[in-house]
Amino acid sequence: MIKNYAILGTGAIGGYFAIKLFQAGFTVHCLLRRDFSHVKQHGLTLISDKEKITAPINAYQSIHDMPVCDTILVALKTTDNELLKDLLPKIMHSGTTVVILQNGIGIEQEIAEFIDPYKVIGGSCMLKVSRESSGVIRHFGLNSIELAQYYADAYQEGITDKVEELAENFRKARIPCIVTTHLATMRWKKLAGNIAVNGLSVVLNAYTQELVKHPASFRLLCAITKEVISAAEQSGAKLPKDFYQFRLNVLQSFSDMEKNYSSMKEDFDAKRPLELHAIYENAISLAERNNFSMPLTEMLYQQLLYLNEENLSKK
Amino acid sequence: MIKNYAILGTGAIGGYFAIKLFQAGFTVHCLLRRDFSHVKQHGLTLISDKEKITAPINAYQSIHDMPVCDTILVALKTTDNELLKDLLPKIMHSGTTVVILQNGIGIEQEIAEFIDPYKVIGGSCMLKVSRESSGVIRHFGLNSIELAQYYADAYQEGITDKVEELAENFRKARIPCIVTTHLATMRWKKLAGNIAVNGLSVVLNAYTQELVKHPASFRLLCAITKEVISAAEQSGAKLPKDFYQFRLNVLQSFSDMEKNYSSMKEDFDAKRPLELHAIYENAISLAERNNFSMPLTEMLYQQLLYLNEENLSKK
Repeated sequence: MIKNYAILGTGAIGGYFAIKLFQAGFTVHCLLRRDFSHVKQHGLTLISDKEKITAPINAYQSIHDMPVCDTILVALKTTDNELLKDLLPKIMHSGTTVVILQNGIGIEQEIAEFIDPYKVIGGSCMLKVSRESSGVIRHFGLNSIELAQYYADAYQEGITDKVEELAENFRKARIPCIVTTHLATMRWKKLAGNIAVNGLSVVLNAYTQELVKHPASFRLLCAITKEVISAAEQSGAKLPKDFYQFRLNVLQSFSDMEKNYSSMKEDFDAKRPLELHAIYENAISLAERNNFSMPLTEMLYQQLLYLNEENLSKK
Repeated sequence: MIKNYAILGTGAIGGYFAIKLFQAGFTVHCLLRRDFSHVKQHGLTLISDKEKITAPINAYQSIHDMPVCDTILVALKTTDNELLKDLLPKIMHSGTTVVILQNGIGIEQEIAEFIDPYKVIGGSCMLKVSRESSGVIRHFGLNSIELAQYYADAYQEGITDKVEELAENFRKARIPCIVTTHLATMRWKKLAGNIAVNGLSVVLNAYTQELVKHPASFRLLCAITKEVISAAEQSGAKLPKDFYQFRLNVLQSFSDMEKNYSSMKEDFDAKRPLELHAIYENAISLAERNNFSMPLTEMLYQQLLYLNEENLSKK
C-alpha cells in the first residue's frame, strides 16, 4: 500500500500534486531547487479562483536527506533527466513505483534502462498551472491525469494493480484519474497537441490564440497535427476514429480564450532549455523505426534546435 | 537597335544597371520614388572599393513624364508588380522589350498576360549591391547577369536576336552577360539558393553565415535545397548533374564571409513586404502543376506568410 510520495522536481506540476496528495492525508517529500528555503519556511501554496491552500510539505534540498518512498512522481523538466540515474535509486525500496509525469514520448523506456521496467508508470497530466512566485503555484484550469503501465514491448497493453492503486489515490486527492491500457497511445495523443502548438509558438513568436486565428499558422497546425496522428497510428497507437476532428475542435476552442503562451514558449522566454529530445527527437525516431517519416515535425525540430541553442547562448 | 533604356524601380539593382549603361553611352531614364529629389539634383552615385561614379541620369517621379523607350528594365520589388499593368504600356512602342530583373519564378508569365509574350525577357542578376543613402548605391561584389527569352510554352527553348543584342549592350557596360536558352531553368537555379536561405534567415532571425555554421540550420538548408532541385527537375528545368553539390559548395563558402543578411531578411527588418508570391507561392504552384509537392518549402512559406503579416502590422 502506498503511504508516502516523493516528488522530484517540485515546480508548478509537481507542487500541485504534492499539495493535493498532502491534503488527502498522504505523506509527501519534495525535492526542490530554487524555492527550497521559501518552502521549508512557509510551506507550498496553491492558489486558484476558488481557494488558497498552504501545505507544510517536507522540503529537501538534497536527495541524500530524503527517505525511501513508496511512489516517486518525476516532475522534472525532461531536460534534467540525466540526473535521474543518480537520484532515483537513492530513494527507492524493492516495491517503489516511479511515475513519469513528463511531456514527450519514450522517456519511460530510457528510465527502464536503469530501473526495473515493471516499476515504471507513465502519467499524462491535463493541468494548467504555473509558478507565480517562490513556493506559490497558481491553478488556471483543467485537473486530471491519465496513467499507464510501462511495458518493454511497446505494443503490450494492460492495467496493473499498482496503476489502479495510484489512480485511486489521485482520486482521493480530488484529481480525476483515467487508467489506460496502452502507454504509447496515451503519449501520442498528447503529442498530437504538443508537437504543433509548442514548436510553432516558439518559431513564430506567437500566442496559441494567434496561431489558431491566422490562416497560415492554422494550416500549419492542421498539417503537423495530421502528420503526428499518422505517425502515431503507424507506430501502433490506437487513436479514436475522429481524433483529428477532436484535435481541431480543441484548437478552435483556443481562439476564444485569453492570450497565453504554450509551455515551451514560456521556457524559451525564460531562457530555459527546451524539451526537444522528449517531444521531438523521440517521436521522430519512434516513427522512423516504424518506417514513417515526419518531414514537417523534423523541420520544426531542426528550427527549434537552432533557436534553442541561440537562445541559451544569449543567457 | 536599342538606344535608350527605362529603369522601373531605381533601387540598388536598378540603379546599378542605370549607371553602368549610362557610362557605356546609352540614354537612361529612371523612375524613382523616395530618392527622386536627390537624384534629380545630384545624380545617381555608385561606390565600390575601386571607384566612385556619379551619373547625371534622367530622373522621373511620374511615368507620365517619361518617354517611350526601346528597353525597359523592371527592377521593382515583385510586391509592387500590380503597378506594371498600368506603367509598362505608357512607355512602350511597338518594338519595346521588357526585361524582368526580379527574383522568383512565373513573373514573366504574369506580365505576358498584358504584354506581347515575345517582348518579355527574363534576367537573373548575380550582384551584391545595397542602397547606402539617398541616391547612393554600394557595390559589394559579383557582377553578372543571365538572360533568357520568355515563351508561352514553358518547355520551349531558344535564343532571340533581342536577347543577343541586350547581352551585347550589357557587356559594353562591363557587365558579363550569359545568354541562356531556357527561362525556367534559369529561374529554378536561382530559387535553389533563394528559397532556403531567404526564408530561413527570416524565420530563424539569422545571418546567412549562422545558418551555414549551425548543424541544425545547415541540415534544413540542405533538405530544402534538395527539395527545390527535385521540384525544378520535375518541372522541366535542365540542371547540371552536380548542381546540388555546386549549391552545397556555394553555401559552405558563405561560412568564411562576414556576417550579412539575405535580401529577404533585409526587407523584413525594414518592415517591407516580403516577395513571397514570386519566390514561394509561384514555385510551389508550378511544382504542383507538375505533380510534385514541396512540403518543406510549403511549411516555410506558411511560416513566412504569418511572420510577414505580423511584421507589417507592427509598422
